[in-house]
Amino acid sequence: MSTALKSIKSLAPLLDRVLVQRIKAGTKTAGGIFLPESAVKELNEAKVLAVGPGAMDKEGKRIGMSVQAGDKVLIPQYGGSPIKVGDEEYSLFRDHELLAKINE
Amino acid sequence: MSTALKSIKSLAPLLDRVLVQRIKAGTKTAGGIFLPESAVKELNEAKVLAVGPGAMDKEGKRIGMSVQAGDKVLIPQYGGSPIKVGDEEYSLFRDHELLAKINE
Amino acid sequence: MSTALKSIKSLAPLLDRVLVQRIKAGTKTAGGIFLPESAVKELNEAKVLAVGPGAMDKEGKRIGMSVQAGDKVLIPQYGGSPIKVGDEEYSLFRDHELLAKINE
Amino acid sequence: MSTALKSIKSLAPLLDRVLVQRIKAGTKTAGGIFLPESAVKELNEAKVLAVGPGAMDKEGKRIGMSVQAGDKVLIPQYGGSPIKVGDEEYSLFRDHELLAKINE
Amino acid sequence: MSTALKSIKSLAPLLDRVLVQRIKAGTKTAGGIFLPESAVKELNEAKVLAVGPGAMDKEGKRIGMSVQAGDKVLIPQYGGSPIKVGDEEYSLFRDHELLAKINE
Amino acid sequence: MSTALKSIKSLAPLLDRVLVQRIKAGTKTAGGIFLPESAVKELNEAKVLAVGPGAMDKEGKRIGMSVQAGDKVLIPQYGGSPIKVGDEEYSLFRDHELLAKINE
Amino acid sequence: MSTALKSIKSLAPLLDRVLVQRIKAGTKTAGGIFLPESAVKELNEAKVLAVGPGAMDKEGKRIGMSVQAGDKVLIPQYGGSPIKVGDEEYSLFRDHELLAKINE
Repeated sequence: MSTALKSIKSLAPLLDRVLVQRIKAGTKTAGGIFLPESAVKELNEAKVLAVGPGAMDKEGKRIGMSVQAGDKVLIPQYGGSPIKVGDEEYSLFRDHELLAKINE
Repeated sequence: MSTALKSIKSLAPLLDRVLVQRIKAGTKTAGGIFLPESAVKELNEAKVLAVGPGAMDKEGKRIGMSVQAGDKVLIPQYGGSPIKVGDEEYSLFRDHELLAKINE
Repeated sequence: MSTALKSIKSLAPLLDRVLVQRIKAGTKTAGGIFLPESAVKELNEAKVLAVGPGAMDKEGKRIGMSVQAGDKVLIPQYGGSPIKVGDEEYSLFRDHELLAKINE
Repeated sequence: MSTALKSIKSLAPLLDRVLVQRIKAGTKTAGGIFLPESAVKELNEAKVLAVGPGAMDKEGKRIGMSVQAGDKVLIPQYGGSPIKVGDEEYSLFRDHELLAKINE
Repeated sequence: MSTALKSIKSLAPLLDRVLVQRIKAGTKTAGGIFLPESAVKELNEAKVLAVGPGAMDKEGKRIGMSVQAGDKVLIPQYGGSPIKVGDEEYSLFRDHELLAKINE
Repeated sequence: MSTALKSIKSLAPLLDRVLVQRIKAGTKTAGGIFLPESAVKELNEAKVLAVGPGAMDKEGKRIGMSVQAGDKVLIPQYGGSPIKVGDEEYSLFRDHELLAKINE
Repeated sequence: MSTALKSIKSLAPLLDRVLVQRIKAGTKTAGGIFLPESAVKELNEAKVLAVGPGAMDKEGKRIGMSVQAGDKVLIPQYGGSPIKVGDEEYSLFRDHELLAKINE
């Protein structure tokens, strides 16, 4: 989905949405050899760039989010809303769709 | 969907609906060259024109809306109810279908 | 759906149903020329003729309706239960299916 | 669905069910001419013969019914459970499936 | 579904289930002539043999049943779990699937 | 579904699950003649071997189970999760899927 | 689903998710003979490596998990989100999808 956004930083996710960017697999091998683009595997790890304020429960209170900006997360293989800003690709997921936090 | 509306301003969305208009991509290049119509990409950014009073929760209270008139928002690729007034096209979304607010 | 009703006025919608009649597009052009029937576009604007008392919430209280008789509304492209009385056509919608109120 | 019922009066609908009988279109024209069977249109108007005590809400209280025996109602084009007693046909609807009450 | 049950009386329905047996249409005509098996119509009337204690609501209380053993009921055309004990056939329905009680 | 379990007794069902084993139809006729394997009908009666602690309601309390270990039950024709331990076959059902208790 | 994770230990499941690893069937027969890879049956037993903090109920409290790290569990034949770290395969299940705990 194309946008005319100047910067991804201007996006503030709504409700329980989480804005993430997939982490690219290294394009160098362990030995320092550069890999051709086609050999770079798509990973399901992503960095959280921004999170919404949380969905609303039935009493109108916000439900807490599971992650915050800066977290690394495991995202599902399919799903999410893709966003393109310039040449970069991002995705929006609902909080409950994220599978796991990655601690380092 | 065609209407005989004189002005889009006469539309007051009901419940949690949000009336938006897609933002058109510039028809000039950065260098000032005018682009032919067919080269103008459809974007998923929209301006909020009007919002409903909010859906009702089970106790009959209104659930707050996430956006207000004047906001710029990221809308989903598909969905929404299209409305045509004269030559202009608009859409109605439910509040929870909007993906993100765009801050400038 | 055919009825033997003498008058549409004898219909009292149940629960959260709203009885509407589509507004016919003018059959004259701005310049006063009469248009043939086939040139008259079907619009998605309708006049509210009668509204039900509202659906019941889990405590047995009525949920308020969004519109009232006399309101002009934007109806969805598809859906609703069609009713025919004589040569006139009407529709029944649920309150939450109506898209927007049209203020004049 | 066939029954061995002697009289439709012995049927007491359960929960929120409503027993109705479709009103037959007159078989005489306004001028008094009898119409052949095949010219009699099926209508969506019905007479309420009996109503159940109402569905149960989550606290075990009965939810009030929208109609009562003797009411004339507009029924949906499709749906309902057909019942045959002798040569007569009846239908059972849930209370919320009925579209409108017909006042005379 | 076959069982090795010695008697249908040993079956105690669970939750909101109702054990019924279809009432067979008389195999004699009004004039006393015996009808061949193939002429006996299947009816949708059944006798309630046993009822469960009721489903549980969200607070752990039992929801009351609409019928009791000995009642005659109108059952839906399709559905229910068939049970065979010896040569006899029975069915289990959920309480809310039963259409009406038959009073005599 | 294969397992490396040494004994079915080591299985403790979770939440509202019930571990059962189908009762085999006798392989001897009433007169004492042994029936070949292919003549043994599969029955829908089962013995309850173990039950879970119950599902959790919205307040975090356990919902009571309808059956207990040792009960004989009527199970539905289809459904359940099959488990194989050695040559024996077992099934796991949710509590509400069981049809009836069999008293002897 | 591929990952660039260095260690599975860096994965912290979110909400009610449970990270498990299938238990491999022994590759030796009881008599000590090594079996070829293709003869090793896939089992539905798994070891719990990590559990999430629990899903949130409607009041924003965590719902307790049924299992904990170190437990052995019976997992369903299908479902779960597969994760690959190096050559090892893992799965993420929701707590309520796990069938039984295996006690030893």
